[in-house]
Amino acid sequence: MAQRPTMNDVAAQAGVSQAVVSLVLSGAHAGRASAATAQRVRDAATTLGYRTNLQAKSLKTGVAEIIGLVGDEVATSPFSGMMIKGAQDRAWRDGHTLLTIDTGGDSELESAAVETMLSHQVRGIIYTAMYHREVTVPAPALDTRVVCLNARDLDGQVPSVTPDEVTGGYEATRVLLDAGHTRIAMINIHDVLPAARGRREGYERALAESGLAADPDLVYKGEGTQRSGFEAARHLMGLPVPPTAIFCGNDRTALGVYQGLAEIGLRVPDDVSIVGYDDQDILRDFFHPGLTTVQLPFAEMGDRAAALVLDADAPVQTHLIHCPVIHRHSVAPPKGQ
Amino acid sequence: MAQRPTMNDVAAQAGVSQAVVSLVLSGAHAGRASAATAQRVRDAATTLGYRTNLQAKSLKTGVAEIIGLVGDEVATSPFSGMMIKGAQDRAWRDGHTLLTIDTGGDSELESAAVETMLSHQVRGIIYTAMYHREVTVPAPALDTRVVCLNARDLDGQVPSVTPDEVTGGYEATRVLLDAGHTRIAMINIHDVLPAARGRREGYERALAESGLAADPDLVYKGEGTQRSGFEAARHLMGLPVPPTAIFCGNDRTALGVYQGLAEIGLRVPDDVSIVGYDDQDILRDFFHPGLTTVQLPFAEMGDRAAALVLDADAPVQTHLIHCPVIHRHSVAPPKGQ
Repeated sequence: MAQRPTMNDVAAQAGVSQAVVSLVLSGAHAGRASAATAQRVRDAATTLGYRTNLQAKSLKTGVAEIIGLVGDEVATSPFSGMMIKGAQDRAWRDGHTLLTIDTGGDSELESAAVETMLSHQVRGIIYTAMYHREVTVPAPALDTRVVCLNARDLDGQVPSVTPDEVTGGYEATRVLLDAGHTRIAMINIHDVLPAARGRREGYERALAESGLAADPDLVYKGEGTQRSGFEAARHLMGLPVPPTAIFCGNDRTALGVYQGLAEIGLRVPDDVSIVGYDDQDILRDFFHPGLTTVQLPFAEMGDRAAALVLDADAPVQTHLIHCPVIHRHSVAPPKGQ
Repeated sequence: MAQRPTMNDVAAQAGVSQAVVSLVLSGAHAGRASAATAQRVRDAATTLGYRTNLQAKSLKTGVAEIIGLVGDEVATSPFSGMMIKGAQDRAWRDGHTLLTIDTGGDSELESAAVETMLSHQVRGIIYTAMYHREVTVPAPALDTRVVCLNARDLDGQVPSVTPDEVTGGYEATRVLLDAGHTRIAMINIHDVLPAARGRREGYERALAESGLAADPDLVYKGEGTQRSGFEAARHLMGLPVPPTAIFCGNDRTALGVYQGLAEIGLRVPDDVSIVGYDDQDILRDFFHPGLTTVQLPFAEMGDRAAALVLDADAPVQTHLIHCPVIHRHSVAPPKGQ
């Protein structure tokens, strides 16, 4: 390992005192060193590869150019990494670096992660969940600015960024209504999740707006798995008056529905129209025909969370990010229309 | 935001001087403060929630309890997040925290990531690639300890941790040989990749060891995609003497092979035996019957890389991590045996 150049080395190279180097490199030399001297110092620093110690700087100013992201399994699981990408790109554009620590949900590790970030004087912490849920921000984190991402702060102390699940559920159902369907089922995911509650609320709102009563027989309590989608499809299509369209609480459910329908000889979208939710990259290729679905806007959510860390005046509220419908080929008018 | 307590506050609370607080909290008080005084200081610090400034500590000792991980798309893509998990768990067990920065392959962002980590006095940097490839470590990173992960350092300056692709390819082929196959095809992924070269070398070694010549007609240059697996299956099974078993360069290829075989009415493993590579979580459920494959040991690789950062005496070489065969249901003896 090469010896790193010191401020003394820069001073010697530039022919000035160490104090002048310090003034120039910290940007505090106005009126105390000539422009020519300042340039000589900067040239010397560049030549020697001298690195300003950001730590020393952050100790002095109390603010380092770092945004921390504490996640449960955001970086280590395949689902929601695009939130990191979005936050990182925003941090970078605004002159900051995003440092991520995943804790695997371990509370001891989470405490250590928060302490580490505080000790390194981060500008703020993005407290992030892999799937949309309600959280309590660890108290020590509140020593800095905190924004919850894909998570809603139960105590209402800090801004939260979440998908707008209600509008997403509404628009998914709207797509099916607009195609002419009136008997629209919903296969929900685990109904304790904010995502499940919101998507169902949107579904019911869209039906009500069209003057349709929500038929409890058409709402199937699924589990968000392919298997439960498979079983739900067979159950729903076996009803005395089966649905002509199904809004699936997630893409994985929709994949099971495709398989369940194929088993009983029904085609998508000729016999049954399907809309999903999530727009998971990794599943996309498995749908034939392509699935019309609602996208979780992970990159945009990450972007917003990083922007909120940097905007101290942002209101403490839940910032809802719109989930756009991605139109593919799983929706058609009901048969006979 | 509450005002954070200072060392002066702790001194006042404990009824001692600030110098004594500093000595006690830095662990340097032996012979200079009584045990009772030290306890009083620690109690006061706990009561007030005083936080030792790790930055100040690291400035003094030059070593912070942090390991940095600079990745291209490791945290933001679904493939290889388990490397982060493995490195994180090891770092944590050894009293360190893993800080991750993904750069998306952007060299400017990479430089900033390295500088940030150096300025925060990390213990070392794990320089990580999403897929196994050859890399040049950015020169400034060499100011600290660097370990390449899922990447081989082309300049041979630092330890590298990579999957043992050759042994993996060997054992995959061995499984098919042991089942009695003698006409074994290989569908490779892009052959410029170290993974492709290694897996093929292992395949040829296993054949040679069994006294079988590698038949060039049986080696198909694929692209690692489902589509190229699909096309390869149809091509190979159309040969005058088709193979009875196929080693696929990755799982995605194997998925295409399953589909290609189904199209021409052939069953796995009754008609053709298949072994894959990667053991990608997300694809696992799509194989019927379950795919026998070789696992990329991402968590173990991450663990090893973190351990190597902390072991300054570790040899500068490529540390190969064994890729275990995961036996499922896609291999059977050739027909008629």
